[in-house]
Amino acid sequence: MPKPSTTKWTRKHLLGLEDLSAAEITTILDAADKCFPYAMGRKAAPQTLKGRTVLNLFCEDSTRTRTSFTLAAERLGARVIQFHAATSSLSKRESLLDTARNVEAMGLEAIVIRHPERGAPQQVAEAVRCAVLNAGDDAHEHPTQALLDFLAMRHHFGRLDRLTVAVVGDVRHSRVARSNLYGLKKLGSRLVFVGPPVFLEGIDDIRVPVETTTDFDAVLPRCDAVMMLRVQFERHEGIVFDADDYIRGYQLTPRRLARAKPGAIVLHPGPVNRGIELPDDVTDGLQSAILHQVTCGVAVRMAALNLCIGAVDRERKAAKKPARKGF
Amino acid sequence: MPKPSTTKWTRKHLLGLEDLSAAEITTILDAADKCFPYAMGRKAAPQTLKGRTVLNLFCEDSTRTRTSFTLAAERLGARVIQFHAATSSLSKRESLLDTARNVEAMGLEAIVIRHPERGAPQQVAEAVRCAVLNAGDDAHEHPTQALLDFLAMRHHFGRLDRLTVAVVGDVRHSRVARSNLYGLKKLGSRLVFVGPPVFLEGIDDIRVPVETTTDFDAVLPRCDAVMMLRVQFERHEGIVFDADDYIRGYQLTPRRLARAKPGAIVLHPGPVNRGIELPDDVTDGLQSAILHQVTCGVAVRMAALNLCIGAVDRERKAAKKPARKGF
Amino acid sequence: MPKPSTTKWTRKHLLGLEDLSAAEITTILDAADKCFPYAMGRKAAPQTLKGRTVLNLFCEDSTRTRTSFTLAAERLGARVIQFHAATSSLSKRESLLDTARNVEAMGLEAIVIRHPERGAPQQVAEAVRCAVLNAGDDAHEHPTQALLDFLAMRHHFGRLDRLTVAVVGDVRHSRVARSNLYGLKKLGSRLVFVGPPVFLEGIDDIRVPVETTTDFDAVLPRCDAVMMLRVQFERHEGIVFDADDYIRGYQLTPRRLARAKPGAIVLHPGPVNRGIELPDDVTDGLQSAILHQVTCGVAVRMAALNLCIGAVDRERKAAKKPARKGF
Repeated sequence: MPKPSTTKWTRKHLLGLEDLSAAEITTILDAADKCFPYAMGRKAAPQTLKGRTVLNLFCEDSTRTRTSFTLAAERLGARVIQFHAATSSLSKRESLLDTARNVEAMGLEAIVIRHPERGAPQQVAEAVRCAVLNAGDDAHEHPTQALLDFLAMRHHFGRLDRLTVAVVGDVRHSRVARSNLYGLKKLGSRLVFVGPPVFLEGIDDIRVPVETTTDFDAVLPRCDAVMMLRVQFERHEGIVFDADDYIRGYQLTPRRLARAKPGAIVLHPGPVNRGIELPDDVTDGLQSAILHQVTCGVAVRMAALNLCIGAVDRERKAAKKPARKGF
Repeated sequence: MPKPSTTKWTRKHLLGLEDLSAAEITTILDAADKCFPYAMGRKAAPQTLKGRTVLNLFCEDSTRTRTSFTLAAERLGARVIQFHAATSSLSKRESLLDTARNVEAMGLEAIVIRHPERGAPQQVAEAVRCAVLNAGDDAHEHPTQALLDFLAMRHHFGRLDRLTVAVVGDVRHSRVARSNLYGLKKLGSRLVFVGPPVFLEGIDDIRVPVETTTDFDAVLPRCDAVMMLRVQFERHEGIVFDADDYIRGYQLTPRRLARAKPGAIVLHPGPVNRGIELPDDVTDGLQSAILHQVTCGVAVRMAALNLCIGAVDRERKAAKKPARKGF
Repeated sequence: MPKPSTTKWTRKHLLGLEDLSAAEITTILDAADKCFPYAMGRKAAPQTLKGRTVLNLFCEDSTRTRTSFTLAAERLGARVIQFHAATSSLSKRESLLDTARNVEAMGLEAIVIRHPERGAPQQVAEAVRCAVLNAGDDAHEHPTQALLDFLAMRHHFGRLDRLTVAVVGDVRHSRVARSNLYGLKKLGSRLVFVGPPVFLEGIDDIRVPVETTTDFDAVLPRCDAVMMLRVQFERHEGIVFDADDYIRGYQLTPRRLARAKPGAIVLHPGPVNRGIELPDDVTDGLQSAILHQVTCGVAVRMAALNLCIGAVDRERKAAKKPARKGF
């Protein structure tokens, strides 16, 4: 079993894993484990966020992540305000920041933001006093998704160091790949990006060294976990993609999975393109952690909300001045 | 007064009335009568679903039915997650089932589903462990709508056998007509489908014999209740429909209504096309049960949620294994 | 300090300020001041609307006002049902009224309505028995917005009489301008509409005399408060508008603001077109009351909901008959 972290959490924001220390990641995961028994809602969670308000500010479609954050907040007693913004109306950064400040003036403890532009969550965090949680910004970071992957892996392996994880497929467009990379490196594990050349291009924004390969079969024998990425067809404008070629080279078939380490698990951020990344028998098979990941997602988001809003509360308490700005 | 049903409810799903026995229908209606005093929210209902989560998975527009299910669930203490899905994104059955399983892994007790394809609720029911309630699938079934019709009629007539009900208009496109037919037959009442030939075609999918007629005036003297269906213009592609002709033959005018049995009532699933199916003086007249139907709708949905989630709970309790799948 | 109003509130509806007396306006503002400490949600408000249901019937986009009403209702313990109606589906008045009556039959205490047609809230109020609150109808009235302006001004000046307020810009399309005018006149303050000729046309619907001027600079030295209106580009079809000209003549620059009375404050209903109506340094400056207005908005809406639903309760109590209609 991993030792519980003794790091005290001090951040108001969860913007990405690139900035977190290994100890901070462990702190969130430990907190998530405490939330896990309540994640499915069958047992009432301590109402730590009773009466608090969380804003879901989603400027891209995402019913799953949005629903997961909503349930996480509500299970802790918080109210969730849904703000589905057409990208257009909040595409100007100015308008996004004004909206965030405006809704904050109605009384908010946290903003959960998904935005098609890299860095938007960071800018919102600089504009407000409440907590900001990044639920995905372009192909940059998606920290709670990586944290739920870590939680699922820790449940299985009992540790997060000395693991080798293949991240397979559309790495280029994947914030999940990037957040996993930043986090797993710090935790002492190894990550390999696997995919056809077209998906391994365009990753120059990544600021840590990473092993890449186009040969899935060669890398499998080293893998404790295989994380299949969703092929993001909707982002493929101008990219030549042959589905049959892809399936031949990168679908995780039962035969391929058998080449991985004994006890290896299969991860996928969902939704799976069945028949592309994974065939049905692997998606629904015994080594699949996919539905377990989903439950871990609620637990991780409960933990993240608790930790970040706790930091807001401490800051408010410490402040001599009232938290209201300007006027 | 009808005798209270002594049938114990054992189903996790409410998919249609074709499969239910008369005793089961009576069980739901009896439960709905117990919920009725709380349906308007003026008196706090017993919080039987406190802390539970219900997913509204609506793949077709429906603000009224969705709102009714939402209020029913919330008045019993449940949380409701709204999932407005563009038909396109969940048009592939595979994607629908994966979404249902995915959200279920976040902790759910029931899925309320409306879908443009016949049989979709059944398929979801087979894919998940929680309760599934059909809120309308194509022109197939809409069980809670028929049940609320029954409740409104039982409030008025004190019984549901030996009644004659005319179901008038766009029978072809009506799941309401079908669910009423399956249910009323079992309860010992007679149903007549009335409409122009074009609306009485395309009902070969119905698996019980049914009387049909194009002569509204001739059938009225036998009728205890007249259920006017909404003309579903949005589904009329390729159908020639002359509004004036229709009104002449099938609008329920005060004069026509006077030909029905004394004390006959007028039903309509709403929203009424005023001036088409019904003139204002009948829509808003003393024999109209239309708004009472709406209140009955909340009561029926409270009952259905209570009964189906109760069955889920018993199944979970009985299971030795944890309810989580796979991993 | 203003004396607390001793007027007892008797209205079920808040449709506009044209019909309210000065004493009634003061009653709402006094009630809003009692709600203010709870408006940000940091302290639990008395749950005066616990178990009650409020319908947000928004037939025009409005995330801010909708969110403000939602938070106001929820902080008092009410449940809020969101009804985003495409204008088209509820454009026919008949359909709007039927929808309102229909949802009322599910159990409602109040309908908050925004609608693109003038008078729609009034017509809904005549069709239902619950409370109706106008959240903006065309360029007619937006009473809670004006009330929040008054509350913010009363917080600053300690009174609402003997003030001069410039309302600047797109007066023609502004319900905010009209509601402010009706209210401030009654309270004993002076209002001046300021803007280019094209924006001062088309205000013949206003039934009280109002001072207008195209000369912003000349009017400023008399102003206690400057309310900048949002240029509503989306309503400008057929209007020639030159942004540079507009900025030259009507942007509230720091230099212009310095010409207003000492201690003057800047108001804006939001969202600000930064760089058009206001430059950043004034929007975010010390004299800006913009974010304070937003907080006042929640307090005003809490008060309005409390008062109007209180009147509904008294009417129901007084009624011998049950509140259900018709059947």
